[in-house]
Amino acid sequence: MSSLIVQKFGGTSVGSIERISKVVERVASRARKGHRLAIVVSAMAGETDRMIGLAKQFGAEVNRRELDALLATGEQACAALISIALSAKGIASISFQGGQVPIRTDSNFGNASIQSVAPQHVLRHLDEGKIVIVAGYQGVTDGNEITTLGRGGSDLTAVALAAALDAEQCEIYTDVSGVFTADPQVCSDARLIRKISYDEMLELASLGAKVLQARSVQLAKRYMIPIWVGSSFEDAEGTWVTKEELTMEGTVVSGISCDRKDAKISLRHLPDPIQSMTQLFSALADIQVVVDVIVQDKTTDGKTNLTFTIPRENLHTALKIAQQIFKGIPDVEIISEEKVAKISAVGLGMRTHSGVAAKMFQCLAREGIEVWAVSTSEIKISCVIDERYAELAVRALHDQFGLAKEPH
Amino acid sequence: MSSLIVQKFGGTSVGSIERISKVVERVASRARKGHRLAIVVSAMAGETDRMIGLAKQFGAEVNRRELDALLATGEQACAALISIALSAKGIASISFQGGQVPIRTDSNFGNASIQSVAPQHVLRHLDEGKIVIVAGYQGVTDGNEITTLGRGGSDLTAVALAAALDAEQCEIYTDVSGVFTADPQVCSDARLIRKISYDEMLELASLGAKVLQARSVQLAKRYMIPIWVGSSFEDAEGTWVTKEELTMEGTVVSGISCDRKDAKISLRHLPDPIQSMTQLFSALADIQVVVDVIVQDKTTDGKTNLTFTIPRENLHTALKIAQQIFKGIPDVEIISEEKVAKISAVGLGMRTHSGVAAKMFQCLAREGIEVWAVSTSEIKISCVIDERYAELAVRALHDQFGLAKEPH
Repeated sequence: MSSLIVQKFGGTSVGSIERISKVVERVASRARKGHRLAIVVSAMAGETDRMIGLAKQFGAEVNRRELDALLATGEQACAALISIALSAKGIASISFQGGQVPIRTDSNFGNASIQSVAPQHVLRHLDEGKIVIVAGYQGVTDGNEITTLGRGGSDLTAVALAAALDAEQCEIYTDVSGVFTADPQVCSDARLIRKISYDEMLELASLGAKVLQARSVQLAKRYMIPIWVGSSFEDAEGTWVTKEELTMEGTVVSGISCDRKDAKISLRHLPDPIQSMTQLFSALADIQVVVDVIVQDKTTDGKTNLTFTIPRENLHTALKIAQQIFKGIPDVEIISEEKVAKISAVGLGMRTHSGVAAKMFQCLAREGIEVWAVSTSEIKISCVIDERYAELAVRALHDQFGLAKEPH
Repeated sequence: MSSLIVQKFGGTSVGSIERISKVVERVASRARKGHRLAIVVSAMAGETDRMIGLAKQFGAEVNRRELDALLATGEQACAALISIALSAKGIASISFQGGQVPIRTDSNFGNASIQSVAPQHVLRHLDEGKIVIVAGYQGVTDGNEITTLGRGGSDLTAVALAAALDAEQCEIYTDVSGVFTADPQVCSDARLIRKISYDEMLELASLGAKVLQARSVQLAKRYMIPIWVGSSFEDAEGTWVTKEELTMEGTVVSGISCDRKDAKISLRHLPDPIQSMTQLFSALADIQVVVDVIVQDKTTDGKTNLTFTIPRENLHTALKIAQQIFKGIPDVEIISEEKVAKISAVGLGMRTHSGVAAKMFQCLAREGIEVWAVSTSEIKISCVIDERYAELAVRALHDQFGLAKEPH
């Protein structure tokens, strides 16, 4: 049996008749090489926003079930158009809505989770020699109601379909060339990463998220589906996201990422840290505020200082909660900083190479950048700093870890 | 249980956000009167043509299965939008694609026939107090493939749904005020017909077809669903299309219709009419050419003259076939006329009133209009004439049968 490949084309890749024609050429030439192909497509660029715009004209509160039914038509139309274009070239193909596969989801409209993808229907048509086009971003509940999977959901469709079909690989065609060692907008000598592990990709958060939705990477990791991600506009090398390989450990740091969505709150001179933290973090959890980095240290007088980061849009609410909890307690000081950046160095090699943290702190100190908080995982070190120094920090660290050079 | 009504809104009625808002107001005010409402919608005006345009850019030969999948999204999106608009006004509603009802069809893509409409799902939601919005013009095959019902298919969806739900009536909202005694563009004193029988509506062909698709009328007749058809832009009286009522026979002629889509072929001096006609009409049927009026008469020398009408676009092909069949036979003359009009007078009263044909011929003769062929049914007389006199004929007959006056 010839190898089975899932290819996904994003909204900009199918954003016009000309671009759809290019996609069709790419698919056709791949099919001629003897691969069995299942294609997942997004809506044509702009369609989803246009439809949201229409819906909002009837009021700010949009019925989410109906919005999903509306939005899903964008991908459905695009899938049919691609199949029409393939047929016009004499290539046998068939398009499916998510519900026709079927792709089953829970009923969390607007952000549904995939529960199962039935492979039989798609496989039957692939085995008949057809290219199967599946509308991305959508599924149906057990009750046959149409759901959508949230932003970037077509990536998830592609990986889930690849897993269900036991595909050899999943190729994500998008408008960027792949994953870089740092944001090329910030760091002019950032280099395309040829191959990266699922875990590194997940830790690279901001770098990765622009290219590939995190849920898709997690799913690919679980089913060990190799993902290739690259541009549909050029014959680029792209980036492979795969399971860990022995040679990968040779690279101590794979990339530097930068998140700018957080704010920081510091509490000084807490008398009873366990009780304070339990009370505070429970209250924040109750209103769905996600706390990220948490750092705690003892002062010389036996009190505790606590620093943590939260999404910037929650700063105001979180401050009010902290003030309420600590208002009767003497000496406690609450300080906040709205604009912080979290700079992360990520690399599998950190597990075996010590001294990465020290190198990172030295580098930032040399640039006069104060580190406000630190968090680490097995393959990542993150420093919370003043957002004003974010670009400077990324460039300095990219240089420090020699990322502009090709890995040996 | 409160009465159940099916309302259908055509493409121009939902052609913009403003117009959708008007439809929603109309639906909401009807719902407040305590009716249970199932709404069938077309795609927003222009959407279907826009999508056909997109599809054709990939080649003239468009895969019909995929075209159906593409086109069906237009109604699906509109159904969801209407439900979003109702929800925004606090009115409980739910939208369904054809396949979610489900509406089952055969697999004749582009022109599918409805085989069944399952009422349970819609009824359950109606009974929960929701307004149910169904995407018109579409269904699914037993294999769950999306089909469309052909031009005017949303009317058919509405009538089939009304039949399945055992609705009290089916209201078709469109951009015209109803059915008139003649085309108001041609005949300035044409009058709105308040009530007409299914059979008359079917025979009024051109007058009716502009308002209501013939298949829908046939279906409504079979299930005895009263149809109301009128404008969604005004509070118009509209036209009721219902089963025959005793009082209807009082009106000898209900309306004058005019078809301008045919051409005429005459064959003179055929030696063996039975064999000739069999041969000719079989050949035409083989290539799907529909023959309408057929008139045959004997000449004094024992030969036969034959005149028949066919769709104008088939004239060239039909002539070639006739020439081939009769090329060896001496004396046979083939004459064609591209532009003919078929003027029809329709009315239930013809069954009991004789002399309608005579009155019609006299009237046309008085205007100097030659009648080239005649065909009759129980409630219709049609005359084929030179298209140049079509308007004149309609006006003269409208006047002759006193249609401008209100029926007594």
